[in-house]
Amino acid sequence: MSPNSQNTTEKASTDNANAQWGGRFAGGPSEIMQAINASISFDKALWRQDIRGSLAHAAMLAHVGIISSSDETAIRDGLTGIGAEIEAGTFTFSEALEDIHMNIEARLSERIGEAGKRLHTGRSRNDQVATDFRLWVRDAIDGLDQQAASLMRALALRAQEHAADPMPGFTHLQTAQPVTFGHHLMAYVEMLARDRGRLADTRRRLNECPLGSAALAGTSFPIDRAMTAQTLGFDRPTANSLDAVSDRDFALEYLSALSIMAMHLSRLAEEIVIWCSSPFSFIRLSDAFTTGSSIMPQKRNPDAAELIRAKTGRITGSLVGLLTVMKGLPLAYAKDMQEDKEPVFAATDAAALSLAAMDGMVRDMQANTAQMRALAGSGYSTATDIADWLVRVLKVPFRTAHHVTGRLVAKAEEKNIGLAELTLEDMQAEEPGITPDIYSVLTVDASIASRTSLGGTAADNVRAQAQRWLATLADTQA
Amino acid sequence: MSPNSQNTTEKASTDNANAQWGGRFAGGPSEIMQAINASISFDKALWRQDIRGSLAHAAMLAHVGIISSSDETAIRDGLTGIGAEIEAGTFTFSEALEDIHMNIEARLSERIGEAGKRLHTGRSRNDQVATDFRLWVRDAIDGLDQQAASLMRALALRAQEHAADPMPGFTHLQTAQPVTFGHHLMAYVEMLARDRGRLADTRRRLNECPLGSAALAGTSFPIDRAMTAQTLGFDRPTANSLDAVSDRDFALEYLSALSIMAMHLSRLAEEIVIWCSSPFSFIRLSDAFTTGSSIMPQKRNPDAAELIRAKTGRITGSLVGLLTVMKGLPLAYAKDMQEDKEPVFAATDAAALSLAAMDGMVRDMQANTAQMRALAGSGYSTATDIADWLVRVLKVPFRTAHHVTGRLVAKAEEKNIGLAELTLEDMQAEEPGITPDIYSVLTVDASIASRTSLGGTAADNVRAQAQRWLATLADTQA
Amino acid sequence: MSPNSQNTTEKASTDNANAQWGGRFAGGPSEIMQAINASISFDKALWRQDIRGSLAHAAMLAHVGIISSSDETAIRDGLTGIGAEIEAGTFTFSEALEDIHMNIEARLSERIGEAGKRLHTGRSRNDQVATDFRLWVRDAIDGLDQQAASLMRALALRAQEHAADPMPGFTHLQTAQPVTFGHHLMAYVEMLARDRGRLADTRRRLNECPLGSAALAGTSFPIDRAMTAQTLGFDRPTANSLDAVSDRDFALEYLSALSIMAMHLSRLAEEIVIWCSSPFSFIRLSDAFTTGSSIMPQKRNPDAAELIRAKTGRITGSLVGLLTVMKGLPLAYAKDMQEDKEPVFAATDAAALSLAAMDGMVRDMQANTAQMRALAGSGYSTATDIADWLVRVLKVPFRTAHHVTGRLVAKAEEKNIGLAELTLEDMQAEEPGITPDIYSVLTVDASIASRTSLGGTAADNVRAQAQRWLATLADTQA
Amino acid sequence: MSPNSQNTTEKASTDNANAQWGGRFAGGPSEIMQAINASISFDKALWRQDIRGSLAHAAMLAHVGIISSSDETAIRDGLTGIGAEIEAGTFTFSEALEDIHMNIEARLSERIGEAGKRLHTGRSRNDQVATDFRLWVRDAIDGLDQQAASLMRALALRAQEHAADPMPGFTHLQTAQPVTFGHHLMAYVEMLARDRGRLADTRRRLNECPLGSAALAGTSFPIDRAMTAQTLGFDRPTANSLDAVSDRDFALEYLSALSIMAMHLSRLAEEIVIWCSSPFSFIRLSDAFTTGSSIMPQKRNPDAAELIRAKTGRITGSLVGLLTVMKGLPLAYAKDMQEDKEPVFAATDAAALSLAAMDGMVRDMQANTAQMRALAGSGYSTATDIADWLVRVLKVPFRTAHHVTGRLVAKAEEKNIGLAELTLEDMQAEEPGITPDIYSVLTVDASIASRTSLGGTAADNVRAQAQRWLATLADTQA
Repeated sequence: MSPNSQNTTEKASTDNANAQWGGRFAGGPSEIMQAINASISFDKALWRQDIRGSLAHAAMLAHVGIISSSDETAIRDGLTGIGAEIEAGTFTFSEALEDIHMNIEARLSERIGEAGKRLHTGRSRNDQVATDFRLWVRDAIDGLDQQAASLMRALALRAQEHAADPMPGFTHLQTAQPVTFGHHLMAYVEMLARDRGRLADTRRRLNECPLGSAALAGTSFPIDRAMTAQTLGFDRPTANSLDAVSDRDFALEYLSALSIMAMHLSRLAEEIVIWCSSPFSFIRLSDAFTTGSSIMPQKRNPDAAELIRAKTGRITGSLVGLLTVMKGLPLAYAKDMQEDKEPVFAATDAAALSLAAMDGMVRDMQANTAQMRALAGSGYSTATDIADWLVRVLKVPFRTAHHVTGRLVAKAEEKNIGLAELTLEDMQAEEPGITPDIYSVLTVDASIASRTSLGGTAADNVRAQAQRWLATLADTQA
Repeated sequence: MSPNSQNTTEKASTDNANAQWGGRFAGGPSEIMQAINASISFDKALWRQDIRGSLAHAAMLAHVGIISSSDETAIRDGLTGIGAEIEAGTFTFSEALEDIHMNIEARLSERIGEAGKRLHTGRSRNDQVATDFRLWVRDAIDGLDQQAASLMRALALRAQEHAADPMPGFTHLQTAQPVTFGHHLMAYVEMLARDRGRLADTRRRLNECPLGSAALAGTSFPIDRAMTAQTLGFDRPTANSLDAVSDRDFALEYLSALSIMAMHLSRLAEEIVIWCSSPFSFIRLSDAFTTGSSIMPQKRNPDAAELIRAKTGRITGSLVGLLTVMKGLPLAYAKDMQEDKEPVFAATDAAALSLAAMDGMVRDMQANTAQMRALAGSGYSTATDIADWLVRVLKVPFRTAHHVTGRLVAKAEEKNIGLAELTLEDMQAEEPGITPDIYSVLTVDASIASRTSLGGTAADNVRAQAQRWLATLADTQA
Repeated sequence: MSPNSQNTTEKASTDNANAQWGGRFAGGPSEIMQAINASISFDKALWRQDIRGSLAHAAMLAHVGIISSSDETAIRDGLTGIGAEIEAGTFTFSEALEDIHMNIEARLSERIGEAGKRLHTGRSRNDQVATDFRLWVRDAIDGLDQQAASLMRALALRAQEHAADPMPGFTHLQTAQPVTFGHHLMAYVEMLARDRGRLADTRRRLNECPLGSAALAGTSFPIDRAMTAQTLGFDRPTANSLDAVSDRDFALEYLSALSIMAMHLSRLAEEIVIWCSSPFSFIRLSDAFTTGSSIMPQKRNPDAAELIRAKTGRITGSLVGLLTVMKGLPLAYAKDMQEDKEPVFAATDAAALSLAAMDGMVRDMQANTAQMRALAGSGYSTATDIADWLVRVLKVPFRTAHHVTGRLVAKAEEKNIGLAELTLEDMQAEEPGITPDIYSVLTVDASIASRTSLGGTAADNVRAQAQRWLATLADTQA
Repeated sequence: MSPNSQNTTEKASTDNANAQWGGRFAGGPSEIMQAINASISFDKALWRQDIRGSLAHAAMLAHVGIISSSDETAIRDGLTGIGAEIEAGTFTFSEALEDIHMNIEARLSERIGEAGKRLHTGRSRNDQVATDFRLWVRDAIDGLDQQAASLMRALALRAQEHAADPMPGFTHLQTAQPVTFGHHLMAYVEMLARDRGRLADTRRRLNECPLGSAALAGTSFPIDRAMTAQTLGFDRPTANSLDAVSDRDFALEYLSALSIMAMHLSRLAEEIVIWCSSPFSFIRLSDAFTTGSSIMPQKRNPDAAELIRAKTGRITGSLVGLLTVMKGLPLAYAKDMQEDKEPVFAATDAAALSLAAMDGMVRDMQANTAQMRALAGSGYSTATDIADWLVRVLKVPFRTAHHVTGRLVAKAEEKNIGLAELTLEDMQAEEPGITPDIYSVLTVDASIASRTSLGGTAADNVRAQAQRWLATLADTQA
């Protein structure tokens, strides 16, 4: 899957914690410095963005006359060729050249000579890396947004299917009131919609182009920053050069949005784990998303759900890591900021895997509707319906109705029967006004059907809400 | 400042870590349970929002005919009276009644009897607390937004004043190129503008009303959720009742926005601490924002800046705390979510204090422009200007110009002189094409003046940018 | 519970996030500075430690002849009187005097005049606060250690009681192999033992006395640091004055230990919540540790367990907060470090409440052993026992035995029967060597009884382990 | 440096966040599941530990007669051969085999047939991975401990060299009192000593062997857990099988210790960055630990220090990540726990690099003692010495002496002179008892020399302390 997998790196990776500790840096200071300083082992992930940014910069330099049109042609051809080399896995990354930017620029000069040396006019590595990284995060947002939309569709489809199927609605993991399984799934559609909203806001706010801010102070060359911004799909250039090279808000805001989304996924994952446990048995995951045990074939470990739940840690940890890095850094660029990429890469990968796996699980899982229905009616789950009936029909004040209901439930519990099995006399002993009509509200289906308030669990509500979302999402589908 | 300061709480606060440990819960289980369970000690901060929400709910209940108009009048008068009691400090908060909602409702029934018992029709504590807390966070956002705007004005005013005053522009805290002090301050204006953007997005996304979602499933009463939403200034009701009572995204997104803002303030605070240190001496804080030492009157400890820097910890810690709480919680409401308020209150207080103190420091601080100018020209800070001249005038490729400049600086350093003191012969030995015109780019002022690219440090740029922001901010001013 | 509850603070607390935002700091800079700078609102919790430290310091000053013996007597009487005032709630804390140290010293001079002014000789606030805070954390450790020991006893007692009662042992929340409930509870005893080990190590490492390090450089007075260290129960004085006033490791290590302990408690709390849910019904909590619902009396919300699970957030957030504060602080003391106390106080309170509530729940909860036993035998939980029998008796290689067992379980699942219901022919079809003896390993009790390896779940093991711990803990009991 | 660098992995790594998002998992569910589930891409780092653990296990199985001695020989030879293959880079890791354990076991059966299938008797992957990971962390601790000791030696050597060289002692980054550069460096020796203490305690606590706990319940085979524990260098077997497979305390405690150590390093790194800035110019880093700029050869960016400061983020983020993973996990093993390794590997690498780079910097850096001495005497840094003189010689109460000194400094500041330049008349106007003897305490050297209290900055103290540490550390040196 990695396009770089055959590309070699001249210097072996340093992240081998298992190395012989003592002799680790036998090569002395320069080896240590290279190991801590070079970023090529991870920032090569930016190669597409780096080439894209350089192409836009060169086109602008030619447009305003800072370089000749033939130089621009040479640069364009050179960079395109380098892209092909990396894609093909024949590019040699050098740790001595530190990062992706110098690796590509050095190779460009190798390939096209003098013209390559003109590319860096009017920019510096500080604005270049800021531009590349924004482009990368923007691409990542677009990818995750599509995945989140796909998961919303998956949930809404299953919700439509189960719009009228009862399950116990829990608070404190105790049965509270019946809801429908569709209603429950639609709650996650709402969460993901907010997640996409946050990603969209992050994208909009990051969509300003730092290129041309140069080292920190701007440049004396007559560059056209509006042109590079437009070419790269940014809404506008950034307004302050010091800020532009020092700013990593876009990465932090992105990690914040992912942290909240990961929390949502962890909640659904937790529910899946609980629903799959044998006392619950609400759902059965497909073979594709469980791991078995060769010894206990009935065992269907919900590993994917557990891993999604766990990946919350990676994502939140990444956010904390980058907030810690940025705390108290004086302006402008400081090398500390090189530690921005790995957390963002790791969190992106965790989020993409989590969304993909959740999407698959939701589409494939099989609901045990009989089991859910059976439990939905247990635990005096329609007690609230009695209270509401007392208020609605007998005009009893709510708090009083609440207390009457409490006594009725206590009576049923004492007799070890359900509410519907209480006799009318039992009921009237607590509240003389009760009529046989009350029995009509004591079934799971009646309870659900009555919750017609906006956002309530009545099947028609759920069906309509799923339909609305599916229509909206159809527009965004690829 | 606290309007509750004279109100008593019947049961003493439990947060006294210094108590006699052994005998702490001598009263047995019920005392422990009350201590861990009751939230009145902190959620009484929601009293205004709780009353506001109940007033809206009662008006709606009367409007749709669930309660009578006379009941609504009684409720309105009762709640208004309770608000006055709390304001006056005569209200007795009871730990046995657990939280602010039950404290107020119980008092209402005390005051107005039967009608008070009808208030809770068609809602539950789950949607009530979700509504109250959203209202509180929305108020907090509005307050912090005003404070951030005020700080932006303070910065832009000082930037206008110092738009042309040079200071050393640092990367890695090493002198890199001259910038203006105004340009530096304007970088923070950009950061705060993004902070306000995040707060505004958070506000927009939170501005949906959970009231009427009831316990988790909606209600069978014919409530008008659009009406309560509108009365309370929300854009619309929330769409899914299970989500509505389980959602704390608004608090997490708010804490994320505050964490990024606190990071920005920590950077400026760090700079202030460094600028105040005697080797730098770039600025002098006013007496109001320093603490002295009675023994060393020259000592002006920048305590406020240090505390602002430190408060980042409180705010980030609050975000991490709430993300941890929400991780893996099954739907719908769980008691875990009661742990949402204290981190939000603590972070809000830290942010409000930080903004207020930074605002004061920025307005009062005195810039030592002579010292900044002197250092701006040191460290071969105009070396880039030579390279740019070589490219612009002699058409030398940038990388080559870069190397020529390197040799010139090395020569100057060897002779222990500045770049402007190199003779023309010195220069021409490295690059024969150099003409005396090159000396025109070697001054701090020329360097700054040349950075006219969009967002660059040229004084006119800075002045215009400050002016634009001051005009924008004038519109938002109270 | 707070001994300070009647003491007044002259200036109202600033932490009222709900105030009128605009006019919040109408009083101007000095009010803001006081609000951000003063710590008396929270550091008054150190009053006992501050007085204790001052008494030790004064005794030493007199011992080495820096102050007279009559001065020391006056100081001792004065401080004792102040302690009585605070205890009695008649002390007036002043925000203008900033912190607990100046509040007490100022009051001392009021009470005893000149002698009071001699107390601060040879120390400074920097070493004084470091000493006070260490004493506080040490007291807190001692308190939590006792509470953790009590919880271990509670768990071991319940484990002893249920040493032979089977429950399903889960991995991935899927039934894996039978274990005993006692064995499960004893796992938490081990965790808590490690928690206490970490607290003890933290205590040992913090137990060095900073007093006499003065502002940062030590002092020219001939103080006897060994004497104050000993008086205050420290093992020795700290070795480097710069380190001593800049070090908050003890607070961080303490918060780390609490974070790990809170994670342990969150795991047990999660299990309690799941065990209490109706599909599981493994345990029933006592009334004291559940909240009911007046409407659904059967509802026994495990609020205490949920709150314990949630308090993990507060504690981890506190650790992150203080790590963030300390990151990158130059030596020696910086005002940032004033932000060390509130996270420590908040985490201590959360940990103490969590331990107390868990202790109560464990002692009171009622195990539904029939339900646990029934589920322990479901899900082919003894499949591993077949594989082990094949290896042990027939000398089949383990991986092969594993595969044979898999086929047997598949056959049973297909026929929808338990493993013990397979006929010998069924078994021999897969492995001809199987004899009727195999049926002896297919019961829950046989499975458990066979796990006699060190640390295994056999009832005798569990009983012995519980007994060993109870004996050990008896020694530590108050 | 990675011994695995030439080994191939059959399936390309999935952590390429830059892939074509849409088509990412075109292969469908099974591809997603493999991507999220397989751990071989990172847990192959455990190969040495896995082989070591299996060798110990096989030897024990043979010893107690569970396998034959010839089987054990075959297993030993097979595993040794596999180790050689991995070392040589010829081993083919398979993603389909999920993890390092199955990769090695599968290869073993390929190489030695039947005997290989007997290896897994009496253990499971749950206890196997717990054992491997403990061994890995123990190795990592030993490596970091050596590195920390080396850095302590480096610091103590430089402290010895500069035991008498004055520098300004800062509080709030404001000059407070003179200290010696050696004293300052020794503060970090104390911090690192505590770091090593924490690592040692972590090691001691982790040094129990989970092997033989099997899946979760122990085993029915007559294994000898004491023997495997001893062979692998553990102090004893773990006491509870459920705990043993569910416990990741050792990783969390390790990450806590690293987080505190990283914070220490970030403080020294911050100081190095400030000391290197031109207004301070306290030190000059060697070429090896700076990056230059080809254009500004005088520029010596302290990149290594900045990266060390930043790596705090990675390490703290790793701790938060793993605490988040473990929060609320029911016993026993859950797949979430697979997310334990990457944070530990990443944090270890960051810590090892930070220690190595700091060690190099400290050994190579050059102190500008003249500049430090000059600043040490500025800012009325000896004012405290006046106060102390008044107390010591004139018996003035300390608070009074403090005020007198304040007035003297104010007078000097007004006249824009140093304290030593005040005339005796000036002094006596404030305090008639002052004699010419007071001038003897007003020099930097006198001030330093007077701080002879235990832990104070007097040169002899510093020299002795450095000497003591160097002697202690000599014993631990390789």
